[in-house]
Amino acid sequence: MNKAKKAVVLLSGGLDSATCLAMAKAQGFEPWALSVRYGQRHSVELEAAKKIAASLGAAHKIVDMDLRAIGGSALTDDIAVPETREKGIPVTYVPARNTLMLSLALGWAEVLQAADIFIGVNAVDYSGYPDCRPEFIQAFARLANLATRAGVEGTEYRIHTPLIDLTKAEIIQAGLKLGVDYSQTVSCYQADDQGRACGRCDSCHYRAQGFREAGVEDVTRYC
Amino acid sequence: MNKAKKAVVLLSGGLDSATCLAMAKAQGFEPWALSVRYGQRHSVELEAAKKIAASLGAAHKIVDMDLRAIGGSALTDDIAVPETREKGIPVTYVPARNTLMLSLALGWAEVLQAADIFIGVNAVDYSGYPDCRPEFIQAFARLANLATRAGVEGTEYRIHTPLIDLTKAEIIQAGLKLGVDYSQTVSCYQADDQGRACGRCDSCHYRAQGFREAGVEDVTRYC
Repeated sequence: MNKAKKAVVLLSGGLDSATCLAMAKAQGFEPWALSVRYGQRHSVELEAAKKIAASLGAAHKIVDMDLRAIGGSALTDDIAVPETREKGIPVTYVPARNTLMLSLALGWAEVLQAADIFIGVNAVDYSGYPDCRPEFIQAFARLANLATRAGVEGTEYRIHTPLIDLTKAEIIQAGLKLGVDYSQTVSCYQADDQGRACGRCDSCHYRAQGFREAGVEDVTRYC
Repeated sequence: MNKAKKAVVLLSGGLDSATCLAMAKAQGFEPWALSVRYGQRHSVELEAAKKIAASLGAAHKIVDMDLRAIGGSALTDDIAVPETREKGIPVTYVPARNTLMLSLALGWAEVLQAADIFIGVNAVDYSGYPDCRPEFIQAFARLANLATRAGVEGTEYRIHTPLIDLTKAEIIQAGLKLGVDYSQTVSCYQADDQGRACGRCDSCHYRAQGFREAGVEDVTRYC
């Protein structure tokens, strides 16, 4: 039997990245989950990430990167998280976040000698966040092969985005088939310290809608 | 008089980035210097960065990002810094470092509404480090315009690499004309806690050679 290939999987602790991790595993990769403590308000999601990684049997690492120092987002600054849908790019957008997350994943992949990186960006997100769009992902893959020792020596990095064309409902249905326990995941932008969701922010809205449209029970723990 | 345009300048505290900062200023930009505490052995260079920013009149920010968690380099791990020249990519290469530094600079630029980023990569470095090559810089600029709110809304980011084609001697000559005090800078990979250089590592070697070839006094403080 061939040894499974390693893949670095970005894991925030939310619904999407948990599903992405399960998919990486289902595709036969040995998943190495990477979370980032970037000064997010909803740091309880890192506790969620630990549980998810453990229950899916993935190695897990949390890296510290203090994006509060840079500011510019309702997720790291003292800007109120909006409770109505916004048009355009939301104030919860964190400047350069996915670029930074993918760069960390790339650095770790290089150390692990992994050529595959998974990130759970999806259609719902890329309607609002610039760094969730397919053209951004393609540009990052190109950069990865120029940025690294491995790239120079011939490794071709692949950035996998298995959720990119799926609706929230489809993501949930796929994850349930793969055994993801969504009660462990935290999507809320302002969850309390037990990981219970507000039920009012953008992220809660899309998540609840996803469960409704998937026709399955919403296992989210609300405040 | 027009207000000077802001530029984010990556400032490690070494000879190159100090010169790059002086050049950004000489080009008429209002420089906002960014340093990263990434777990480098030679953290005394951050003290140097503070002094350099102050003496060149630049705003200065230090961001924490713990690359020791990822490992893979003699600059962050317990791998000995070599004291002879290496062939190929050196063990002092930090995986994805410039990608991460530029991503942080991009995030801060977006918050500051600056479109210009300076990084002091140069010819001597790009012979060894993949993320110092012009094609890497071009790929990052392309990514920047796809990764950000500003890029989507029409800002065109420019990544300036004023040192890229200069030898160490030319960098030193240019910096001296712009008033850079090289005694404030620390290039050594294993400087002591007073910022005194070992005189034996790669970085010391190229620096000392630069002063010799420039025909000026080497103001480096050695152990």
